[in-house]
Amino acid sequence: MDFYITILGCSAALPTATRQCSSQVVNIDGYNLLIDCGEGTQNQIRRYRIKLQSMSDIFISHLHGDHFFGLPGLLSSMHLCGRTEPVNIYAPKGIRKILTHLFNASGAKLSFELVYHEIETQEPILLLENKKCKVFTFPLVHSVPTYGFLIEEQPSLPNLKSGVRKTYNLSPADILKIKIGEGYTTEEGRFIPSSALTKPARPPKKYAYCCDTLFDESFIPHIKDVDLLCFDCTFDSSLTYIANDKLHGTSVSAAMAAKAANAKQLLLTHFSARYNDVDSLVDEAKTIFPNTLAAYDGMRIKLGL
Amino acid sequence: MDFYITILGCSAALPTATRQCSSQVVNIDGYNLLIDCGEGTQNQIRRYRIKLQSMSDIFISHLHGDHFFGLPGLLSSMHLCGRTEPVNIYAPKGIRKILTHLFNASGAKLSFELVYHEIETQEPILLLENKKCKVFTFPLVHSVPTYGFLIEEQPSLPNLKSGVRKTYNLSPADILKIKIGEGYTTEEGRFIPSSALTKPARPPKKYAYCCDTLFDESFIPHIKDVDLLCFDCTFDSSLTYIANDKLHGTSVSAAMAAKAANAKQLLLTHFSARYNDVDSLVDEAKTIFPNTLAAYDGMRIKLGL
Repeated sequence: MDFYITILGCSAALPTATRQCSSQVVNIDGYNLLIDCGEGTQNQIRRYRIKLQSMSDIFISHLHGDHFFGLPGLLSSMHLCGRTEPVNIYAPKGIRKILTHLFNASGAKLSFELVYHEIETQEPILLLENKKCKVFTFPLVHSVPTYGFLIEEQPSLPNLKSGVRKTYNLSPADILKIKIGEGYTTEEGRFIPSSALTKPARPPKKYAYCCDTLFDESFIPHIKDVDLLCFDCTFDSSLTYIANDKLHGTSVSAAMAAKAANAKQLLLTHFSARYNDVDSLVDEAKTIFPNTLAAYDGMRIKLGL
Repeated sequence: MDFYITILGCSAALPTATRQCSSQVVNIDGYNLLIDCGEGTQNQIRRYRIKLQSMSDIFISHLHGDHFFGLPGLLSSMHLCGRTEPVNIYAPKGIRKILTHLFNASGAKLSFELVYHEIETQEPILLLENKKCKVFTFPLVHSVPTYGFLIEEQPSLPNLKSGVRKTYNLSPADILKIKIGEGYTTEEGRFIPSSALTKPARPPKKYAYCCDTLFDESFIPHIKDVDLLCFDCTFDSSLTYIANDKLHGTSVSAAMAAKAANAKQLLLTHFSARYNDVDSLVDEAKTIFPNTLAAYDGMRIKLGL
């Protein structure tokens, strides 16, 4: 199963000529979900050739404008393009009132249903489960209620043990039955349980998004062993005093989070407009967590590579 | 005095790869005002190198999302860049409630004052007068309360009649006094009134913005003799039935409005996303009103040329 992230925007609150406000699309085996929706997200979706109507599940980390001011326009464009399928909005409590008020005030009646799933929790909870993945949320540490997301693909079916297919001359239907646990009955009538014919698939891939937030031990258990951790890196460590004041991450705190979570890879995002390039932030993070990359608008990063 | 318009966006509700939602900057002798503020306006302001903080007066024609969804982000960015000077918002009734609710919900406290001038009128009214211009508004014909804007530069000082300067050997101070009506006293003590020494300046230039709207005789008197009329041209005339249903202009109705108003030039805008290029719409308008141009994002058009 392919599992990759497309970065639509990786800027902090003030967008720049090369970085738009926060937004990214997570694709798991063809299923798209959107995380955050800063102003201009619909333009970025077009620019990076993602299907506008492919996103039925939208997750908003918190209600600061740079993470959701693009949502009204995105939904309006879905409406103008004739959408009928509902859109699920997973966002902190308050989003329903904001969008309802905005659409009422502008006289808009969407052609599809908005299904609100307002988040208000102190514990990690499962927000969504479908055939492709599970999405969990958990509280982060920011100036307004802010939530991280953990996206875990559904387990793959087990693999056949080496040689099994030839030994029993299995058809595709036989193989599927074995993989889903129904076992196999030989021509001689001997039943063999699936467990004897298969070996476990690789573990499900996991992606965590933590933005905006301070590094805090409290949420590390919820992002343990992820393949990729995307973390708030608004500032370099020389500006830690500003980061602490504004409750944002730095290159160092992001790396500490990745290390504490035993992540396989770290993706820095949400860069302050003061940085034209972010090489120095990556270098700083690498001193603590070597497998670090910086997000850029249009980046496509595959998990598990 | 220079008087020019910079088009930031000329798309109808659905933005395209080349056209952003409605927004434009009017510059009169260095004074900038913003008309409409679709999503992404702050990006366009940056792209076309207009100073973010130069706009203290923002005019919104109506509360459809494609004309104001960029306003929260623009104001947030002004705040992030340390603005202290107030911003005046001239917009239909309802804008205060929308913005107040949105900023409250997102926990934002702007560093400057928003001064609301909510429009609710059936008659043309003067919205703003300063040293550079007067801005009038008047109702258009659309599905929600929608207002056109007429921007008229302040009259220039009169010009000296030919030869006057040499005849009396005038200093710059003498000239200014004459131009402001104080007349001139010759070395021999003879007083000459300004009227005898000057000829009227050219008439003030006028720009009208009518979007979104049907063509309707009711507002033509308010845009009479403008140098440039920017008019809703969402559709070509073969789609007049849709235009009438949605209360939008067409290439033909825009041209009819320009002709009826005795405008000097017509600028078509607000093009439906169905048109990759709009040459055919311009051609159609030209059959009725020859001096017609199509807006494009980034266009800079000077009045009176």
